[in-house]
Amino acid sequence: MLVRCLGARRVRQIQRAIRHSTVTFLCLFLTVVVLRGTIGAGKFGTPGQDFEEIRDHLYLRGRRVEPHRVLEEVQPDSESDQSNNYATFDISKILVDDEPDDQKPDPNKPYSLGPKISDWDQQRAEWLRNNPDFSNFTGPNKPRVLLVTGSSPKPCENPVGDHYLLKSIKNKIDYCRLHGIEVFYNMALLDAEMAGFWAKLPLIRKLLLSHPEIEFLWWMDSDAMFTDMAFEVPWDRYKDHNFVMHGWNEMVYDDKNWIGLNTGSFLLRNCQWSLDILDAWAPMGPKGKIRDDAGKILTRELKGRPVFEADDQSAMVYLLMKERYKWGDKVYLENAYYLHGYWGILVDRYEEMIENYHPGLGDHRWPLVTHFVGCKPCGKFGDYPVERCLRQMDRAYNFGDNQILQIYGFTHKSLASRRVKRMRNETSNPLEAKDELGLLHPAFKAVKKMTGI
Amino acid sequence: MLVRCLGARRVRQIQRAIRHSTVTFLCLFLTVVVLRGTIGAGKFGTPGQDFEEIRDHLYLRGRRVEPHRVLEEVQPDSESDQSNNYATFDISKILVDDEPDDQKPDPNKPYSLGPKISDWDQQRAEWLRNNPDFSNFTGPNKPRVLLVTGSSPKPCENPVGDHYLLKSIKNKIDYCRLHGIEVFYNMALLDAEMAGFWAKLPLIRKLLLSHPEIEFLWWMDSDAMFTDMAFEVPWDRYKDHNFVMHGWNEMVYDDKNWIGLNTGSFLLRNCQWSLDILDAWAPMGPKGKIRDDAGKILTRELKGRPVFEADDQSAMVYLLMKERYKWGDKVYLENAYYLHGYWGILVDRYEEMIENYHPGLGDHRWPLVTHFVGCKPCGKFGDYPVERCLRQMDRAYNFGDNQILQIYGFTHKSLASRRVKRMRNETSNPLEAKDELGLLHPAFKAVKKMTGI
Repeated sequence: MLVRCLGARRVRQIQRAIRHSTVTFLCLFLTVVVLRGTIGAGKFGTPGQDFEEIRDHLYLRGRRVEPHRVLEEVQPDSESDQSNNYATFDISKILVDDEPDDQKPDPNKPYSLGPKISDWDQQRAEWLRNNPDFSNFTGPNKPRVLLVTGSSPKPCENPVGDHYLLKSIKNKIDYCRLHGIEVFYNMALLDAEMAGFWAKLPLIRKLLLSHPEIEFLWWMDSDAMFTDMAFEVPWDRYKDHNFVMHGWNEMVYDDKNWIGLNTGSFLLRNCQWSLDILDAWAPMGPKGKIRDDAGKILTRELKGRPVFEADDQSAMVYLLMKERYKWGDKVYLENAYYLHGYWGILVDRYEEMIENYHPGLGDHRWPLVTHFVGCKPCGKFGDYPVERCLRQMDRAYNFGDNQILQIYGFTHKSLASRRVKRMRNETSNPLEAKDELGLLHPAFKAVKKMTGI
Repeated sequence: MLVRCLGARRVRQIQRAIRHSTVTFLCLFLTVVVLRGTIGAGKFGTPGQDFEEIRDHLYLRGRRVEPHRVLEEVQPDSESDQSNNYATFDISKILVDDEPDDQKPDPNKPYSLGPKISDWDQQRAEWLRNNPDFSNFTGPNKPRVLLVTGSSPKPCENPVGDHYLLKSIKNKIDYCRLHGIEVFYNMALLDAEMAGFWAKLPLIRKLLLSHPEIEFLWWMDSDAMFTDMAFEVPWDRYKDHNFVMHGWNEMVYDDKNWIGLNTGSFLLRNCQWSLDILDAWAPMGPKGKIRDDAGKILTRELKGRPVFEADDQSAMVYLLMKERYKWGDKVYLENAYYLHGYWGILVDRYEEMIENYHPGLGDHRWPLVTHFVGCKPCGKFGDYPVERCLRQMDRAYNFGDNQILQIYGFTHKSLASRRVKRMRNETSNPLEAKDELGLLHPAFKAVKKMTGI
């Protein structure tokens, strides 16, 4: 507070100062550009390059050397370091650790997620016996669940990406608070070899082994959002299974189709079987030659798969169709509701859903999850038009958020609007306000608060 | 996945396309600038303005008209709409609701947070009797706590701001998971009149009234981070108090110093007394003339306060020093540990703390909270040099995150590094790994899982 407020006065001075120095700076800059522009490329590089420098620099995302040189020509470091203006600050100044990771793997020894463990079920059972306060079930048919998601420790490659990551975790916090699920948000790369969509494997193994009290780990990609805040996963349905993904048996086992299942949102039981399938899943992951060569095999063996490095989803389809006898009976491919729901077929129907249905259904009438497959909001490029992705991510967020706001008597003015409006007037008997969806004090949450045995 | 992958191929095509069109686009753009630059300002406005247009436009944050006009001169809308490149996308395209709120308050009726409630203690007690599964205590001396924080529904005014909001909520998720505290992240402006640092008041009242099961609400600003993951709030110490803030009695009641307490992180009990103090706190909040005039009074009456509109913290100091007889006995000004800790005096001492102390102390030896007062990472300007703020926010985040990573055998390479390294080798008996801080299965968390009566 102190300086937040001193600022009120100082900011005006600073603004004047900045405005003035900006103009000076920009004039100088303009001169440089005009000179370069009129002299032409020559030893200065192409105009395009010049503007990329300006863009890098103005983005606050510049990670190359040139823009800073240009910057420093104009304003001495001391000055720029003292600036209180986020707009003129070059974030790359504080990215001290962009050098490649120094922990080089030994190319001669095959990749492993960790030391072989074969008695996990016994180890875990013993721990649970000794720690009754941390029961792996918190109620009848209510396993203790940890939802795991995450994103890169670096700022997104595009400035708006982090805002959508923020909305996405807010959305997950809401669902998990209502359903008594704990959240683990990962921002660390635990294993440089398994970067990219393989990073979840070492993380998941580590969490299963560290948290014997967790019965199910729910992995969810950062580009997936809960759109049904009332739907409770039918845990009882999976009592004889260890691994639940959205998918279809025929598409995986018969068609060998690489989109026969989705690994963007899945449930994995904490048991020896799960450690074993993680070990069987991982070998195609190590980046470089291994991942590239594996990609060729997957493209050859799987239906519809384009040419690119091995990805975790294709590897899972491949593993299941090759070794169904080994894994098939404990894998549940769910399609009765949207544990994962492809956004393309859902987002344009939200108004129709609101018209005809209600939260709690979880399926095509009111999808549990809307997954923005291919939008890559934190990257430079997506596979879809950016405008469609961002607009629809806002709609999905607001569609889910309305179910939260309605608990408190508010709703978004429209699915496209960040603004909210009151749905009902406040009363002096707030506890009599009705809560149609029972989200304010859901039964499954009450149960969670009781010892689970 | 489907398109994430199709993309791999398409992205290359797109990248070629983009690269080509970028150069064309930038050349055209350069020409315009060179022309404007050489012709001089004239009817085109000053070079400075031109560059502000470029900057706005390149930021992906342009909210004014000109930059788009410039954009559209170069690439037709249809094209830009179809672009998969986040770098060339103008976020303002999807900000459909930037018009001022239409819910105009009636200037004739005095502001109120809501209908007067005078029997909340009875209403709440009855509800708790009828809902034993939602006890307001989840263990001996363990009240049920809801941590409330939030940020604007809009992207930050500077591109890197949202990344720090993301790190800040990840940090809060971690502390709250370990301490059995639920999290509510607010992104909605519930009351347009109470925008800015007053927005927390209507939100807090709404949450107290909606959640009778919550005993304490913990408000925490988005620019505050937990730096002691092991410290448990001494709840028992507050059993006779309703409102806990970091501060000093002398500074508030004797000196009337506007920084005698801090409202960036406080605990408020769910009871009638709290509703009453919220009502007494709110009147200086409505933006416009009321807030401005109140600011003059606060500056006149409080020691050291600069001239600016009324803020929630000054208003609280003012209320307490004017009506100590009314509120003082239920307000606990805590300074035995850092419920709020001013970053300026803490961040340079983290290495010394690591050298000499350990988590769990919460005070100057290992602060519970480090609050980046005045950095305004989501704004355009802070009151401190941006580089210092961002660098120190990263250090504070990593300092706190190390306590989480160490549970799993990892640590940041340095307080300045986003990269992590292994601290111990993995074993095949993971449950034997020792957990010095007891954060893996903290006692207070185990207690939480039992019915609290």
